[in-house]
Amino acid sequence: MPKLTVVGAGLGDPELITLKAINILRQADVVLYDALINEDLLEYCHPVCERIYVGKRGYEKSVSQDSINFLIVEKAFEKGHVVRLKGGDPFIFGRGNEEIAYAKSRGIETAYIPGVSSILSGGFYEIPLTARGVADSFWVITGTKSDQSLSKDIRLAAHSNATVVILMGMKKLSQIAQIFREEGFPYTPAAIIQQASTAEQKIGIGEVKDLETIAKNHLLSNPAIIMIGEVVKQNSVQHLCYLGQQYSGKNKTN
Amino acid sequence: MPKLTVVGAGLGDPELITLKAINILRQADVVLYDALINEDLLEYCHPVCERIYVGKRGYEKSVSQDSINFLIVEKAFEKGHVVRLKGGDPFIFGRGNEEIAYAKSRGIETAYIPGVSSILSGGFYEIPLTARGVADSFWVITGTKSDQSLSKDIRLAAHSNATVVILMGMKKLSQIAQIFREEGFPYTPAAIIQQASTAEQKIGIGEVKDLETIAKNHLLSNPAIIMIGEVVKQNSVQHLCYLGQQYSGKNKTN
Repeated sequence: MPKLTVVGAGLGDPELITLKAINILRQADVVLYDALINEDLLEYCHPVCERIYVGKRGYEKSVSQDSINFLIVEKAFEKGHVVRLKGGDPFIFGRGNEEIAYAKSRGIETAYIPGVSSILSGGFYEIPLTARGVADSFWVITGTKSDQSLSKDIRLAAHSNATVVILMGMKKLSQIAQIFREEGFPYTPAAIIQQASTAEQKIGIGEVKDLETIAKNHLLSNPAIIMIGEVVKQNSVQHLCYLGQQYSGKNKTN
Repeated sequence: MPKLTVVGAGLGDPELITLKAINILRQADVVLYDALINEDLLEYCHPVCERIYVGKRGYEKSVSQDSINFLIVEKAFEKGHVVRLKGGDPFIFGRGNEEIAYAKSRGIETAYIPGVSSILSGGFYEIPLTARGVADSFWVITGTKSDQSLSKDIRLAAHSNATVVILMGMKKLSQIAQIFREEGFPYTPAAIIQQASTAEQKIGIGEVKDLETIAKNHLLSNPAIIMIGEVVKQNSVQHLCYLGQQYSGKNKTN
């Protein structure tokens, strides 16, 4: 019976996948996987499971969403259980909903297994998304909409008390900084965090007006998340580096 | 050597814990666990591991944060590796940051393992947090701040294009509905989702002005999340029930 399970692989560290996702990978007949997942995870698959790379790398030409949808349906009817393995969580800017809707429209049973999202990257530097008396909300925004423009929500977010988290925003650093300057909040603390939870993780910290310089000084690039808000100053380590020291930490969970 | 690892247990289904969290539970000398975690998870602990319940149930009297902080430090120096196991993710309204800061101030090594947050509950009903052309951001807000009041961010959020996700808001349904009415958005689609990913999961769907009625009709109570935004209408199932049918679905991942 044709089936699609859309699965979040979690961020970076391959141990940050859920037990439920591992159990589903073991049962999969076909796995379609993304660029951002750790390929070590494919070792959970049965030896006869077909593994197909359908990665879409940030700003490069790559497999279209239409081709992926078509492939899901084709493989589900041909082989049975298709697992769609995506970095982070499939329903946070992951288009998991589009794939599920398409598969359902073709009569395929669907299921969802959530994943640890990269919005939690700050935790590896002890930067929480929320903190009592500091931030009682957080706002997660894409830096790159489907038409490649920046979300209008960023301007409104500058006026909120929310911790602002921007995904896929590394090509928009100057625009983001500009918006916060224009709205009157140039000095809000900001961090850029790359490959959190892996041995290669690194961070740059400063003020939102200086996002480009932060990225340059710390050699930060995609995939990375941008965190803007007072929570960036929460931790003692953060506070030290925030006061001027350069800092590029190691993974603290290993 | 005294150590604290703050660990997210994920939501509902005990299989939604990460492999990394399981491996840490196996090494723990002491586990301090919350009310919202599934106690089956404690079976990963070594037989000699001490297991201490320090649950704080929503609106009831319970173990104070000071006592928990004190206990973490005491146990870390007495026994070694303390694991603090929290529902969802420890850095999303979880006060993981407070416990880490306190432990560090007492010279204890700390680490963090993220968890699958209940903000992903919608996925079990195919409601994504973001959807191309529908919502390119989401805003997660606590319904109950440390002083028990509602976050001011909710009023601003009503004006955004973000999917609004409210945690710990079940005692504030009429206030939330009132804010959206006052700001001119009474008809925004809204869902309340309880115990997502478990066999007991249920959902109620309608418009934000009717949040109280939705909860009443579907017998929805804590712990539950509130989702407000056009994404609620994304899925075909959702759309059906949104158009008037009562719906209380079963877990689709099992």
